[in-house]
Amino acid sequence: MARITALPRNETGIETVIGILKQRFGDRLQTGQAIREQHGHTTTWIDNQPPDAVVFPTSTAEVSDIVRTCAEHKVPVIPFGTGTSLEGHVNAPAGGISVDLMQMNNVLAVHAGDLDCVVQPGVTREQLNTHLRDQGLFFPIDPGANASMGGMASTRASGTNAVRYGTMKDNILSLEVVMPDGEVIRTAQRAKKTSAGYDLTRLMIGAEGTLGIITELTLKLQGIPEAISAARCSFPTVDAACQAVMTTIQFGIPVARMELLDVIAVQAVNAYSKLDLPETPLLLLEFHGSEAGVAEQAEMFGSIAEEHEGTGFAWTTSTEERNRLWKARHEFYWATLQLRPGCTALATDVCVPISRLADCVNAATAKAEEMGLFAPLVGHVGDGNFHISPVIDKTNPAEVAKTEEFTAWLAELAISMDGTCTGEHGIGQGKRAYLSRELGQAPRYMAAIKAALDPLGIMNPGKIL
Amino acid sequence: MARITALPRNETGIETVIGILKQRFGDRLQTGQAIREQHGHTTTWIDNQPPDAVVFPTSTAEVSDIVRTCAEHKVPVIPFGTGTSLEGHVNAPAGGISVDLMQMNNVLAVHAGDLDCVVQPGVTREQLNTHLRDQGLFFPIDPGANASMGGMASTRASGTNAVRYGTMKDNILSLEVVMPDGEVIRTAQRAKKTSAGYDLTRLMIGAEGTLGIITELTLKLQGIPEAISAARCSFPTVDAACQAVMTTIQFGIPVARMELLDVIAVQAVNAYSKLDLPETPLLLLEFHGSEAGVAEQAEMFGSIAEEHEGTGFAWTTSTEERNRLWKARHEFYWATLQLRPGCTALATDVCVPISRLADCVNAATAKAEEMGLFAPLVGHVGDGNFHISPVIDKTNPAEVAKTEEFTAWLAELAISMDGTCTGEHGIGQGKRAYLSRELGQAPRYMAAIKAALDPLGIMNPGKIL
Repeated sequence: MARITALPRNETGIETVIGILKQRFGDRLQTGQAIREQHGHTTTWIDNQPPDAVVFPTSTAEVSDIVRTCAEHKVPVIPFGTGTSLEGHVNAPAGGISVDLMQMNNVLAVHAGDLDCVVQPGVTREQLNTHLRDQGLFFPIDPGANASMGGMASTRASGTNAVRYGTMKDNILSLEVVMPDGEVIRTAQRAKKTSAGYDLTRLMIGAEGTLGIITELTLKLQGIPEAISAARCSFPTVDAACQAVMTTIQFGIPVARMELLDVIAVQAVNAYSKLDLPETPLLLLEFHGSEAGVAEQAEMFGSIAEEHEGTGFAWTTSTEERNRLWKARHEFYWATLQLRPGCTALATDVCVPISRLADCVNAATAKAEEMGLFAPLVGHVGDGNFHISPVIDKTNPAEVAKTEEFTAWLAELAISMDGTCTGEHGIGQGKRAYLSRELGQAPRYMAAIKAALDPLGIMNPGKIL
Repeated sequence: MARITALPRNETGIETVIGILKQRFGDRLQTGQAIREQHGHTTTWIDNQPPDAVVFPTSTAEVSDIVRTCAEHKVPVIPFGTGTSLEGHVNAPAGGISVDLMQMNNVLAVHAGDLDCVVQPGVTREQLNTHLRDQGLFFPIDPGANASMGGMASTRASGTNAVRYGTMKDNILSLEVVMPDGEVIRTAQRAKKTSAGYDLTRLMIGAEGTLGIITELTLKLQGIPEAISAARCSFPTVDAACQAVMTTIQFGIPVARMELLDVIAVQAVNAYSKLDLPETPLLLLEFHGSEAGVAEQAEMFGSIAEEHEGTGFAWTTSTEERNRLWKARHEFYWATLQLRPGCTALATDVCVPISRLADCVNAATAKAEEMGLFAPLVGHVGDGNFHISPVIDKTNPAEVAKTEEFTAWLAELAISMDGTCTGEHGIGQGKRAYLSRELGQAPRYMAAIKAALDPLGIMNPGKIL
């Protein structure tokens, strides 16, 4: 991959830092090849660039200590959560120290009366929701993977529930961050709103670890709805499904989830998850509210679907049935890989204004077909966000070249529709080429902020900018 | 006011810039004393510090031209909207050029299908909602004053509807900004979500014009609800009212507005707006949704109110009745001033986690009474945000000293409860003393960002930091 290059290494600094940290952290510093490779990028076709060592801190003070030591010797620091990011965020193109935050995995406080909680960055989505369930609360952001809260904040993750509950940027009240000089700051108090100075909370959300390491998060919570119902509905074409989605959003129906799967995606999950969904474009939906509210929403959606030739609209309030559907949706990525064993999937991530959804989806599927790519499509279509994912043999240069051509074409298409090349996966290494294309001169000011907060350039180098 | 001091002036630069701009802008550059004073702070007890000139651009290119000229000669630039900010944001402590954006007041596009619109910064809240009404849409943020969108974004405004719809930070998709070097950037595309790089949109929201001038805003819109009902309910004490509020929020009832008025505030609006509300602590509420949903919400709130000794719970779907109530609420500030003619009100603005609301309100009212301050209280209590506003004779040093003591005490109290000294008014000049107290070392990094983006320090100097 031409765009994933190595950066100059500070060999002396790295050696010195490993020596110092080894003394302090003992077995909690690892330099074995397997563990190092596991802490480089492993999820998509982007090459693995392992760090020189992996350290496992258990407290903010230890993270601060690591960062101070690395700053003193100008050594790269790469924060690591579950490693489920898709754009090479955890790679170490200049080597350096991977800071694995998964031992900082405590839920520190649940303030049920305030509908918030305080967690360490290694707490995962499933762990948190299991912890909260007894109190009738949940954290709504669900990117599919059982990612860590620190990682989800760092990539401004969203996923299936965002259409109703927003993204990570909408669900974090405050962060504790170890800054690039090792100082520990809190970006805000726990109040629900504030206008006290620059919004450092939102600046750190989506910064992909390039401005500091998140060591604590105060998250907004939601009450588990009185009623939840899941529904599915088949459509003759992806266009018809998209038209139904656009109408639903424009009518302001507060759907909690609205996911599109195209025919190949349905075939993949049927095979992988042993389901028998009709093999046509499919919408999976979820409604949250009171019993009456959920029934009202489902009925309204049913009418819209009917107008757009939707068939087989069926809804269920059975938790088991619902979980089965969403599990299948979440396993889509692995299901896809099984369709072409030994291959890799490249999940594109464009997001366009909802009125352009059908245009963008139609153009993307037509282009993939025209190029002979095998590329199933799923999408958080209520937000105008979808992933069409060529499954390719990365040892075949022709397939790789074709896929690169397709992803570049798709990014341009989304941008031309006033959309983004990345709705939720972030820039990382994989999408750096498109940032200026999308935002013109704005990245120049991002670079100025980066230089001001991380003058040594040690925080997750080679990402975003 | 000891804390509002003048800063060193660049006389030569200011004179040169006025000469250059006079040639370019003719009568659209004004230097008369009345207009200059009107463009300094006029709303609270903070002294007026007029700019040296006021310029009225009509396009982004003109704003860019003004900023470039000022940058070249190191002259302060102070963006100006409707001048309704409360913390001295539009003062010119080092002199300079006030950029009045009210001639840039066009709604540039309404994308009804995407539930968004693009506006210039001088568009006011009422103007926008009048423009949108025919299309069944509205912009939900309502700080009371008929403020401009640019100003509302710059102070991260919120107000009565925030409990349901969030603050300005939650309702802006993208900004066009003239940066301190005169460059024009767009912070994001129009897609509903993005993870493309640092969140410059949110960085500019609440930056109070210290990092650039907002020249265009892409705003999220809402469909006008099928049903809206307003309600009021009286309580024997503010504590009882706060308990009802806390329970309502904890139950997740999606109230659209929930405003508290204490006895003095009710008396003030009764007198000013010729109403006959019962003179006890009062909650004003609004519910948005379907006919059935609104009825359900009102009924649930009714039960909660009853448990907390609420009386006279009455709700209405009459638009006229509803508008009369909210007009009275919005006129509270002027109503208050009429209670002590010739005096000034100082609106405090603390916001605490909802579970601490009753504690904070009770302590604040007791302290004001103990100090002999005449201080009505209103609040966006669903967010834990309230304004207790001493009405004082600013020519009386004893009253001024007492009020300063009270506001400092209240800021400390809110901070000790994990709250903020400013929920929605911003820092400006008036609250600079509390920022470090609230956020520790974080303002140091805000200062680094400021220095990186505005190395000459020309953008609205003397505010926030």
